[in-house]
Amino acid sequence: MVNQLVANIKRTNAPIVVGLDPMMNYIPKTICNKVFAEMGETLEAAAEAVWQFNKGIIDMIYDLIPAVKPQIAMYEQFGIEGLKVFQKTCAYAKEKGLIVIGDVKRSDIGSTSAAYAVAHLGKVQIGSNRYSVFNEDFATVNPYFGTDGIAPFLDVCKEEKKGLFILVKTSNPSSGEFQDRLVDGRPLYEWVGEQVAKWGEECMGEEYSYIGAVVGATYPEMGKILRKLMPKTYILVPGYGAQGGKAKDLVHYFNSDGLGAIVNSSRGIIAAYKNEKYASFGEEHYADAARQAVVDMIEDINTARG
Amino acid sequence: MVNQLVANIKRTNAPIVVGLDPMMNYIPKTICNKVFAEMGETLEAAAEAVWQFNKGIIDMIYDLIPAVKPQIAMYEQFGIEGLKVFQKTCAYAKEKGLIVIGDVKRSDIGSTSAAYAVAHLGKVQIGSNRYSVFNEDFATVNPYFGTDGIAPFLDVCKEEKKGLFILVKTSNPSSGEFQDRLVDGRPLYEWVGEQVAKWGEECMGEEYSYIGAVVGATYPEMGKILRKLMPKTYILVPGYGAQGGKAKDLVHYFNSDGLGAIVNSSRGIIAAYKNEKYASFGEEHYADAARQAVVDMIEDINTARG
Repeated sequence: MVNQLVANIKRTNAPIVVGLDPMMNYIPKTICNKVFAEMGETLEAAAEAVWQFNKGIIDMIYDLIPAVKPQIAMYEQFGIEGLKVFQKTCAYAKEKGLIVIGDVKRSDIGSTSAAYAVAHLGKVQIGSNRYSVFNEDFATVNPYFGTDGIAPFLDVCKEEKKGLFILVKTSNPSSGEFQDRLVDGRPLYEWVGEQVAKWGEECMGEEYSYIGAVVGATYPEMGKILRKLMPKTYILVPGYGAQGGKAKDLVHYFNSDGLGAIVNSSRGIIAAYKNEKYASFGEEHYADAARQAVVDMIEDINTARG
Repeated sequence: MVNQLVANIKRTNAPIVVGLDPMMNYIPKTICNKVFAEMGETLEAAAEAVWQFNKGIIDMIYDLIPAVKPQIAMYEQFGIEGLKVFQKTCAYAKEKGLIVIGDVKRSDIGSTSAAYAVAHLGKVQIGSNRYSVFNEDFATVNPYFGTDGIAPFLDVCKEEKKGLFILVKTSNPSSGEFQDRLVDGRPLYEWVGEQVAKWGEECMGEEYSYIGAVVGATYPEMGKILRKLMPKTYILVPGYGAQGGKAKDLVHYFNSDGLGAIVNSSRGIIAAYKNEKYASFGEEHYADAARQAVVDMIEDINTARG
């Protein structure tokens, strides 16, 4: 799947991913009012509003970008109805030719990790049948358990030719609390990064490994070091835009081939119409605003990778 | 909710929790064959089999124990249908007076963590309505993000009087890969443990904090140190039984009040009938075997806490 991701990035010339992390207050009132009128202020209605919002965005930007990254928490908060829309969003994005990075941050050990891997990337066996469930192309996972927690995901990735992005250095202000602590003179995230590269050796695609890393845009100096520690690792970069990461900070997240990193923006794209810069589109044209924000982001990022 | 947990533990005199982590191969053939005959070898059928299995177990053991811990991965692998059964299992266990510890190991940052907290412990706002979704009493969470990842969970816990168990030292063999690394001469898990105690100060119940910790039974020396570092923190102890943890190893997980720890067994209880010791119950009487295994486990653990 990393080969497909690279192919999509080359085709679109856009090393970016759009985070489909809908919050109720991003969704235009016209959509909300309509579904609430039809279905009441219910979980079903909220989920339907999210779906309509997502579909509007995907339809308007799918030709410009290689991938989307739905954040499952934003769907899970609406329970079963929300998770149905997560599944539907993943399937629809794939229909449109997009790579789906499930931002699920799952992790556990042994048979439990295996069950998560099956749920998100693999197929579950029931009697003599096998079913894909959420069927993402990549999933994000947390490394705190060490190899036992990751190995069952690697097994499924090998079988299904799917991939992971493993948290190395997260974009949030307090990420250093544990991740930056010095171990034998080097910060923990470097040890995690090295281990990610090692896990990745088992799952090599053509140029890059199926096993990627998450490194926040908000820590460019660390990104530079991690890029070198993990040369064959694709880096998923959150924290651009709304969280403060700037394109010029991202130069060193890319390899000299112009590849190796994919930069995420969520709010900055899907809620672009709320930004002064795109306010003239108006709430009803939220998807057009998103398209313009994608165009601008691609240009911004591409100046950075030179 | 920690007050209720302590009350339940005192009432049952059983500092144990039963992990409802059903695997298809734990479920007696009579149940599977019946649902497959009725519904085909489908996701719906698998989920229904899990539900019938769980209900059988809960009905047979609810009077003996304070709490259950459904592992969401085992449900998530069956997709939407599985998650419906997760929700139904949580609700049914609560009806029976049990505390529900959602073993969900969620974590993220900011509004994403807030969405997970809402999904599992809180209420989601839709227009002027508020809905509980999965509605567990406690949830397990991963500390890798630091305070930014935990704070939104703490907010919901305060509002809803619910609780967390934060991963400190996990029970798996490779947990040391990152968790044991020395930082300023002390293993990382001690730093995490101290931070958990600090987070917990904001959410005190009567004797213990609403914010607990996960410390594996398989590392008793570390458990002893962590017990002292986090005196007001309830410790959820996985790894007893099937993973190799023994009751005598658990002495130091308890405080001198006989409280402060709750020991989990999953497979050892719910699949007891597959164990030679309980094989005479037979597959059809899997729930009776589970009850006997609970009785034996309580006795075993209580000799340890003296």
